[in-house]
Amino acid sequence: MKRTFEISPWHVKTTKWAPEDKLLQESMTALANENLGMRGFFEEGYSKTTLQGVYLGGVWFPDKTRVGWWKNGYPKYFGKMINAVNFMKLTLKVNGEQVDLAKQTPHDFCLDLDMKRGLLTRTVTVTVGGAEVTLKFERFVSAAQKELVCQRLTVQSPSDQEIELAVDSQIDADVYNQDANYDEQFWKVLAKEASGSHALLVSQTKANDFGTPQFMVAMQTSAKTDLNHVGDLAEEKQVTNQFAGTLAPGDSVVLEKRTVVTTSRDYEDQASLVAAAADVSAQIDQESFADLLAAHEAEWAKRWSKSDVVIEGDDEAQQGIRFNLFQLFSTYYGNDSRLNISPKGFTGEKYGGATYWDTEAYCLPVYLGVADPQVAKNLLYYRYRQLPGAYVNAKEQGLKGALFPMVTFNGIECHNEWEITFEEIHRNGDIAYAIYNYTRYTGDTSYVLHEGAKVLVEIARFWADRVHYSQRQNKYMLHGVTGPNEYDNNVNNDWYTNLLCKWSLQYTLEILDQVDQEVLKDLAVTEDERRLFQAIADNMYLPEDAERGIFPENDAFLDKDLTPVAQIPSEQLPLNQHWSWDKILRSPYVKQGDVIQGIWDFIDDFTPEQKRKNFDFYEQFTVHESSLSPSVYSIVAADLGDQEKAVELYQRSARLDLDNYNNDTDDGLHITSMTGAWLDIVQGFAGMRIRNGRLHYAPFLPKNWTAYQFNQVFRGRTIQVRVDQAGTHLQLVKGQPLEVEVGQQVIELK
Amino acid sequence: MKRTFEISPWHVKTTKWAPEDKLLQESMTALANENLGMRGFFEEGYSKTTLQGVYLGGVWFPDKTRVGWWKNGYPKYFGKMINAVNFMKLTLKVNGEQVDLAKQTPHDFCLDLDMKRGLLTRTVTVTVGGAEVTLKFERFVSAAQKELVCQRLTVQSPSDQEIELAVDSQIDADVYNQDANYDEQFWKVLAKEASGSHALLVSQTKANDFGTPQFMVAMQTSAKTDLNHVGDLAEEKQVTNQFAGTLAPGDSVVLEKRTVVTTSRDYEDQASLVAAAADVSAQIDQESFADLLAAHEAEWAKRWSKSDVVIEGDDEAQQGIRFNLFQLFSTYYGNDSRLNISPKGFTGEKYGGATYWDTEAYCLPVYLGVADPQVAKNLLYYRYRQLPGAYVNAKEQGLKGALFPMVTFNGIECHNEWEITFEEIHRNGDIAYAIYNYTRYTGDTSYVLHEGAKVLVEIARFWADRVHYSQRQNKYMLHGVTGPNEYDNNVNNDWYTNLLCKWSLQYTLEILDQVDQEVLKDLAVTEDERRLFQAIADNMYLPEDAERGIFPENDAFLDKDLTPVAQIPSEQLPLNQHWSWDKILRSPYVKQGDVIQGIWDFIDDFTPEQKRKNFDFYEQFTVHESSLSPSVYSIVAADLGDQEKAVELYQRSARLDLDNYNNDTDDGLHITSMTGAWLDIVQGFAGMRIRNGRLHYAPFLPKNWTAYQFNQVFRGRTIQVRVDQAGTHLQLVKGQPLEVEVGQQVIELK
Repeated sequence: MKRTFEISPWHVKTTKWAPEDKLLQESMTALANENLGMRGFFEEGYSKTTLQGVYLGGVWFPDKTRVGWWKNGYPKYFGKMINAVNFMKLTLKVNGEQVDLAKQTPHDFCLDLDMKRGLLTRTVTVTVGGAEVTLKFERFVSAAQKELVCQRLTVQSPSDQEIELAVDSQIDADVYNQDANYDEQFWKVLAKEASGSHALLVSQTKANDFGTPQFMVAMQTSAKTDLNHVGDLAEEKQVTNQFAGTLAPGDSVVLEKRTVVTTSRDYEDQASLVAAAADVSAQIDQESFADLLAAHEAEWAKRWSKSDVVIEGDDEAQQGIRFNLFQLFSTYYGNDSRLNISPKGFTGEKYGGATYWDTEAYCLPVYLGVADPQVAKNLLYYRYRQLPGAYVNAKEQGLKGALFPMVTFNGIECHNEWEITFEEIHRNGDIAYAIYNYTRYTGDTSYVLHEGAKVLVEIARFWADRVHYSQRQNKYMLHGVTGPNEYDNNVNNDWYTNLLCKWSLQYTLEILDQVDQEVLKDLAVTEDERRLFQAIADNMYLPEDAERGIFPENDAFLDKDLTPVAQIPSEQLPLNQHWSWDKILRSPYVKQGDVIQGIWDFIDDFTPEQKRKNFDFYEQFTVHESSLSPSVYSIVAADLGDQEKAVELYQRSARLDLDNYNNDTDDGLHITSMTGAWLDIVQGFAGMRIRNGRLHYAPFLPKNWTAYQFNQVFRGRTIQVRVDQAGTHLQLVKGQPLEVEVGQQVIELK
Repeated sequence: MKRTFEISPWHVKTTKWAPEDKLLQESMTALANENLGMRGFFEEGYSKTTLQGVYLGGVWFPDKTRVGWWKNGYPKYFGKMINAVNFMKLTLKVNGEQVDLAKQTPHDFCLDLDMKRGLLTRTVTVTVGGAEVTLKFERFVSAAQKELVCQRLTVQSPSDQEIELAVDSQIDADVYNQDANYDEQFWKVLAKEASGSHALLVSQTKANDFGTPQFMVAMQTSAKTDLNHVGDLAEEKQVTNQFAGTLAPGDSVVLEKRTVVTTSRDYEDQASLVAAAADVSAQIDQESFADLLAAHEAEWAKRWSKSDVVIEGDDEAQQGIRFNLFQLFSTYYGNDSRLNISPKGFTGEKYGGATYWDTEAYCLPVYLGVADPQVAKNLLYYRYRQLPGAYVNAKEQGLKGALFPMVTFNGIECHNEWEITFEEIHRNGDIAYAIYNYTRYTGDTSYVLHEGAKVLVEIARFWADRVHYSQRQNKYMLHGVTGPNEYDNNVNNDWYTNLLCKWSLQYTLEILDQVDQEVLKDLAVTEDERRLFQAIADNMYLPEDAERGIFPENDAFLDKDLTPVAQIPSEQLPLNQHWSWDKILRSPYVKQGDVIQGIWDFIDDFTPEQKRKNFDFYEQFTVHESSLSPSVYSIVAADLGDQEKAVELYQRSARLDLDNYNNDTDDGLHITSMTGAWLDIVQGFAGMRIRNGRLHYAPFLPKNWTAYQFNQVFRGRTIQVRVDQAGTHLQLVKGQPLEVEVGQQVIELK
């Protein structure tokens, strides 16, 4: 655990120079606009430990799958988001000495991420070239213009000294991925130009053996400054516009650098790619940094107005929730249905930047509540568009229908652990559930009755082929699966997976009864298929233990050595850093809610006794070593009225990255886990449910809070929910009147 | 399936030039003497598909472990036997054109492996340089002198033409492994010399990051010939002695090349290494090829006299069993207790050339029967010597005692699949069982009461820490294991593993009651430990199914979809080439005997009904996709009196490589599987058992054989067993009188 920033409601800020926390800080000051983003690495360079990462959404590379021994069904490649050409680069020299804070220790330092405005500012006073200068670096990744990144550098000379200042505005293609197999570079420079205050670099990902597309990227920079333009360089892998000048004592000078990035995701060839970048560049040429910033801030203001969460009496939690929403919205805001949310967003390379089931299970419910329905709907369309890949994945397993991937860029499975890739198939159920969740929340049936029906039917076909019939027990079973709890692998009859299988077959049959004739014809579901879906749904095996009144996580769980977590010596935690994998697998310890995940999904369909018994049983074995885990338990605890437990669990991931809770934020933020805090506040503390198309709340106020307040988007309305010591106060901020429930009471909001 | 050689009792021979079978033939004409060996690649080179492989026993390299995702417990490196410097090389030119059968198609061709003498001869008539020459290449790897390899080249000019002949005798260090990760080379040349008829090349394996030893190898060649010595070359990676001459029409000339190889396994430094090679070279200098061959043949004669198997009425089977024994003895004959038997011996790179549990389970019983006890005893000492590595392996899993490795060179685990490495722990039981098997067979308790007791105790300590207590069933269990049937992974309570666990704990306790005080003191087994071993042995969970009267392979087996193999469309077999891994794992199909392995191990301890029911139940699901599988079922079938079935199963692997049964002999032979045919004949057809220290036979004659006969080594005797249409005839070939049983009868052999 480590807190490197001060507590503040809208800022993530520090005034301490702490090089030992450099990587942490870079992760936490990452910026993005869904289309592109970067870690908070220094534009002027840093010769000690740093992770320079610039990432372009949807621009990835297929790396040959590495496994010890091949198994039929493994994917051929692992897609990874690659470190893009670094257009942020600004090399500074004062009196001939290059600015490098690894060599020159700042006297004053301030790093400030303003979450309200989406602006990162760094101010440094440092002695370089024998002069004490003050440097201010501002940057934002425009939420108003997807191609645009703006930087503003201000240099102030000492009050008693003039300085010679040289600033190079650069685009540097000499980049590597941290995890490159063989130190190879992924980018090839196709074209480059530097002249006057403009530079252009066009690059392309190298060819690959897998037939996946290469990406071409054009980066056009323009610099605006009063410094003299003294030259240009177009080297093998870098273009530079050189500026220089003399600053009188106490004077300051500004250099604005704006970068426009276009990619072949949107343009067919190099000519149109470059022309588009030039167009955008020309359009904004007359606008100042302040103008562009204002447009960007206006977008953020809209987002915050729609979905801000206010917490009173707990500044740490306030900062935490805002940081979560800020980074989440930076990563994804539904503007491009070809894109999705990856575990580290634009903040690091780990997990390759691909899409996981986290999207459906954890992100979708958040976007439903904080943004317009189209944002969540685009997440559903994403999977529909990737059906072709899902067919391929299923075929690789020798199975029918659609098997959505565990990890993907383009719909083809990327992950290479058989116990996950082939077996962690609950993801198909989560994707089906997300369709239901969206429809239930929005009341919009247009997706489920068209594209959604197709997705459901193909998932059903997969289930029907994947189950087997156990003659011994006269039930359909799913053997050889891994549930959300990845600390037990290749198990038989994971309760959660079987539940989702059964449920999604039933849901699919219901939808088949509702679609119109034309859709039905296209789906071409035969009578035999319908009968089989029904037979499986009616006769699906679900483990139960009458004695304990619980659902066993899988068939063998209750034969394990059932020693509670509390009895493990604390120095052995977390298990993943101290225990062998063999020991972990045989243990009863739960990495992430499995049965509890199922209870959360269908929280109104279990009795309080069922929920209580399962919660108590599993909580004693749960180590929450996935950052997605505590939030779900928190919601169930809240549902059971266990307020203290709900708050305690909420706190385990509310400030996961801000406090470096898992000791791994160096690599990047836990973007998809950031959904947890919002879900806990809204579904947990405020008890938000949808029942029969109606919003329901059952709020409590956490003991150490004096109030909390959030806006919720629901069926064309924006509802403000405030819970304070006086009680619950609802307000219709926008939209038509609406009936909601609070506890037992029905309230009309106008 | 493919038969590339003619049927012959003592030869593996073909007169057809078949380049499409080149790799197959290279595998099958491999030679070795335990210490070193090579595939039958052509000494003169071959510019099309060939696998040049020269291997030195015990000389290996640690390659960084490659896995998709790391798991705690994985080994850091994968040991591999590396392709050694090629000392076999003889480059020939006729009238200036290099001999290369990929370019010049032979008019006549004969490839002949003489198994009786251990000699490989290849005769080729081919037009090269405009002349039709006849070339004869002979080679043997001396069974009399471990460092020595001899080659003899005879060149005959056409009857009507003189030819210019040039022969280069070379040592070539420019070698790669077929499976090198990055095309890197493992050898660094330290020294080289070529002068007169001698050449020397000293090489060393490159440094590694793992602290395992580098190996230094000296290769000294001498050439004897009437050709003129015309020069020497010492290039960066190759040394050459050049010979040339003119052959009159019809004349022939001979060049003998002998190579002496010493390694740092036996010598401490470069100087002594080179001196030793020079010494051996000098010692044999005055001996002719014929002398050296005679000494080598004499060794083979001894082996055959001790252990030949004669089959009458079935020439294919006769050739098969001799080929098996020939390759087995070439691979291992107990002369170096630091060495062991690897799945491909000296015939290919696959599986890295390391030691597997195959040694204890399949090879040891063969060596017990065909060689002096010291040979098998050395295999036991090998594991005792590797106890330090076994402690490390156990610690990696967070467990006590000794965990012998699945794959190893030096005792440290090498294999990198968690479901095998961490979980396929029956190997510990097989190693304990081998100690018992040796002791029971030989009557020699010196090992088990000293080093063996130590091994048993440490294995027991592992079991005791690895089991867990299931409160639900009040039994000790082993969860998360993989049995010999690797088509089911990470299962709970594999019957075979649990059986071996229980048995070896009991055996260990019995041994503890027999060791002397000093040994007991060293073993330092506490009272608590003894009690725990006893408790586990008394209370070990063993799956059973009363209804079917069988032992379920594991806890979930009977819930599978129990469709027999016979119902799988034949084009889907073998499963490993047609089915996804997921489908295979969930299926009931048995790759290799699991329950049947246990029944074989303790064949006299189960009732005929138990054996019959289990055999019938599992046979219907067994695909035998491991070449080790059919032989074991054959023995059990024979035990049950099902002669036809026993013979059918025997035939599935008796000629596995000779007929390329599995379509993969290109990569190398299946050395450890070669034990199967001998075990089937002796334990199966002849029903050989040891009961209360007495040899017992219950022979039958396979329907299509007129007789079979084998020699068996037993407690200082050599017994000849002949079974023909007249009956069973035993003869004491050597040693003191002995009582044996044949069927119900007790016979005294004198």
